[in-house]
Amino acid sequence: MLSFQPTPPLDTVPAPPLHFADRTHQMVPSETRALFSMAAREDVVSLAGGMPSPEALPAQALREVLQEVFEAEGASALQYGSAQGDPVLREQICQVMAAEGIGATPDEVLVTVGSQQALDLVTRVFVNPGDTVVTEGPTYVTALSTFAAHQARVVEVAMDRDGVVPQALADTFALLAAEGRPATFFYTVPTFHNPTGRVLGADRRAEVLEICRRAGVLLVEDNPYGLLHFGERPHRALCADAPDGVVYLGSFSKTLAPGLRVGWVRAPRAVTAKLVLAAESAMLSHSKLAQRAVSRFLDTRSWQGHLDVARSLYRGRRDAMLEELAATMPDGVSWTVPAGGFFVWLTLPAGLDARAMMPRAVDGGVAYVPGTGFHTRGGGRNVRLSYSYPTAGQVREGVRRLSDVIRDEAAGGRTSRLREAVAR
Amino acid sequence: MLSFQPTPPLDTVPAPPLHFADRTHQMVPSETRALFSMAAREDVVSLAGGMPSPEALPAQALREVLQEVFEAEGASALQYGSAQGDPVLREQICQVMAAEGIGATPDEVLVTVGSQQALDLVTRVFVNPGDTVVTEGPTYVTALSTFAAHQARVVEVAMDRDGVVPQALADTFALLAAEGRPATFFYTVPTFHNPTGRVLGADRRAEVLEICRRAGVLLVEDNPYGLLHFGERPHRALCADAPDGVVYLGSFSKTLAPGLRVGWVRAPRAVTAKLVLAAESAMLSHSKLAQRAVSRFLDTRSWQGHLDVARSLYRGRRDAMLEELAATMPDGVSWTVPAGGFFVWLTLPAGLDARAMMPRAVDGGVAYVPGTGFHTRGGGRNVRLSYSYPTAGQVREGVRRLSDVIRDEAAGGRTSRLREAVAR
Repeated sequence: MLSFQPTPPLDTVPAPPLHFADRTHQMVPSETRALFSMAAREDVVSLAGGMPSPEALPAQALREVLQEVFEAEGASALQYGSAQGDPVLREQICQVMAAEGIGATPDEVLVTVGSQQALDLVTRVFVNPGDTVVTEGPTYVTALSTFAAHQARVVEVAMDRDGVVPQALADTFALLAAEGRPATFFYTVPTFHNPTGRVLGADRRAEVLEICRRAGVLLVEDNPYGLLHFGERPHRALCADAPDGVVYLGSFSKTLAPGLRVGWVRAPRAVTAKLVLAAESAMLSHSKLAQRAVSRFLDTRSWQGHLDVARSLYRGRRDAMLEELAATMPDGVSWTVPAGGFFVWLTLPAGLDARAMMPRAVDGGVAYVPGTGFHTRGGGRNVRLSYSYPTAGQVREGVRRLSDVIRDEAAGGRTSRLREAVAR
Repeated sequence: MLSFQPTPPLDTVPAPPLHFADRTHQMVPSETRALFSMAAREDVVSLAGGMPSPEALPAQALREVLQEVFEAEGASALQYGSAQGDPVLREQICQVMAAEGIGATPDEVLVTVGSQQALDLVTRVFVNPGDTVVTEGPTYVTALSTFAAHQARVVEVAMDRDGVVPQALADTFALLAAEGRPATFFYTVPTFHNPTGRVLGADRRAEVLEICRRAGVLLVEDNPYGLLHFGERPHRALCADAPDGVVYLGSFSKTLAPGLRVGWVRAPRAVTAKLVLAAESAMLSHSKLAQRAVSRFLDTRSWQGHLDVARSLYRGRRDAMLEELAATMPDGVSWTVPAGGFFVWLTLPAGLDARAMMPRAVDGGVAYVPGTGFHTRGGGRNVRLSYSYPTAGQVREGVRRLSDVIRDEAAGGRTSRLREAVAR
């Protein structure tokens, strides 16, 4: 038996010099994240975050489901799971993907810590330092952090109202190939895009797949919002029509609960095999309890009914935002009209800068994310507005305040104070 | 609104050629993991896995705690959390570490998906491809996977019964520095080491810290088993005496439940800041629900009482294993005597090879992990035995079977069959 012999404290041990890896120098705090703490002030209506609404999370059902998992499985639900993820859940994920036209098998699926980890693992498995990743411009902010952490070069391709512009994508691939630095993959959020809310048009989907195929570039389709449509079902997933050329990222974070951290990646089998190994060295395995809870929810509760509740709630908030934008925004401001998802992308009048305007906005009681966060460069005239978390009333109040802020900023005025905004 | 226009299926889209990143070629299936599925056969007593005992997991308490979290926090427990982890839990983790002499503050702590993710993030933040990581030989098998995934070169340092040999460590550092490829960090499991069960001696702790300090090498202390001691408390953590030179990895996987995936890393503030950024790009944030559950357990249940139950249970199984080893093993077999943790490290008689013996062992109704899995090379005469998961009775039966297998293997015989082992 050991006896307890405390090690004598060393005399003032100086810290060793810290030699971070090269990639670590590219890890810098995201401006967007810093803004979220600013937006957390109680007197500020935040249109910044992309969190789901608490009312859209089936808290009571998940609470009961967790009890049922313990009832049925006992301590086994608290053990290590397999690196690839719960086999039953992987089958159910295939059924979830089938709603978007994807025909997948459980052995192609890896369960991940949200789709963020899926993207990190895909990047880890494919990207050498200096490799090029092509994205839409703008693109999801934390995807940019992931690519930076893996020392990827990011090249953006222009979007219009129907999503990424196919000719621009083809030109970019050709230019990169001519440079001798061909794209490693094209990362896209084709449906209810973050941050613009746009949808890649039906005809364009076939075009984009064909362009990637001809260029021999893998397509990474990130689709956390596809099931949150406000009207008819959106177009089939890109993965549905080119399973061998597409790595698909899915998530229950927007539809069920971010706090369970259950997402997934579906990839061609040879890719999935590598992703499983990468996941094992990255975390051994995902939470078995969280996976069993999602699995049981899908098995015993009404997934469609739950989605209908969420869609209806977000549609109401989107409507509130669009109505208030139309009613209050000054001339020269334009915005997208999302048919699903969480976001509206707003363009300020020429001469205004969304980042420079932030202090005035917070002073005026409203927060948003400046467009620069979603670009490697540019985006200064853009603002991402989210209607997912605040109530419809808060959404309207936030938009009214923002309209005042923009008017004031355009006038170059210095008079907008929170107290006036509240008093009016 | 979108209309649903299915994309026409493309004609036979061929798969793009897969160009994996360089690091991906180093991701190969671990022999150890493959063995676990072999060991899952019902007629085999597995001494292979390192899972905690179901009886040592406070399933009922965690079930109740989860209900209380929902009761107190509602849907908020299902939201995204901060990238660094729940602030209350980070304070409690500091109290847990205090039991091993560590004085840490919550801002130094990052909550991770088990300590496996902590190790992955530490490696990501410090290791460039080709950099050298120094480990004990043998060392934790999935640490080797993590280092391989980051293209690290691993150099092992010999251990004896008191843990890593200080002179060998100093010589290794000197040699690496002379080569112009100094060690990036020294990874060690100083207390109830995986796979040997050994403890780094009290005097050696100060020596090892001093050697690292002089060489300017960061020390990464992995300590998942420290609180599972069978006698008096083990020595102070290395981190306790050199907080500026040590990155400390902790975990609730062995003490509370692996299925919640809650571990942590404590590092000097400048390192933690980078680790938080790495974690954010790797997974956004950990499960808030899992973190709140652990936090509430620590707050409202008897942590010490729970640890006492677990210690007593594992002590009983260790005793069973040691008694049966002493009673049945043939001459020429030796083993370690762990004072805590999950593992016994056995050395076969000269001429025997643990990996080559595996088919005979499974045939004989017992599974273990061959020592080669814990080394970059060598270890062929060693076997890791775990007593954490099987009951004391199963431990005894497994050891008896293993003794027969070793006898048989040493005799070069071909007669050992499962039915005979069962019949005797």
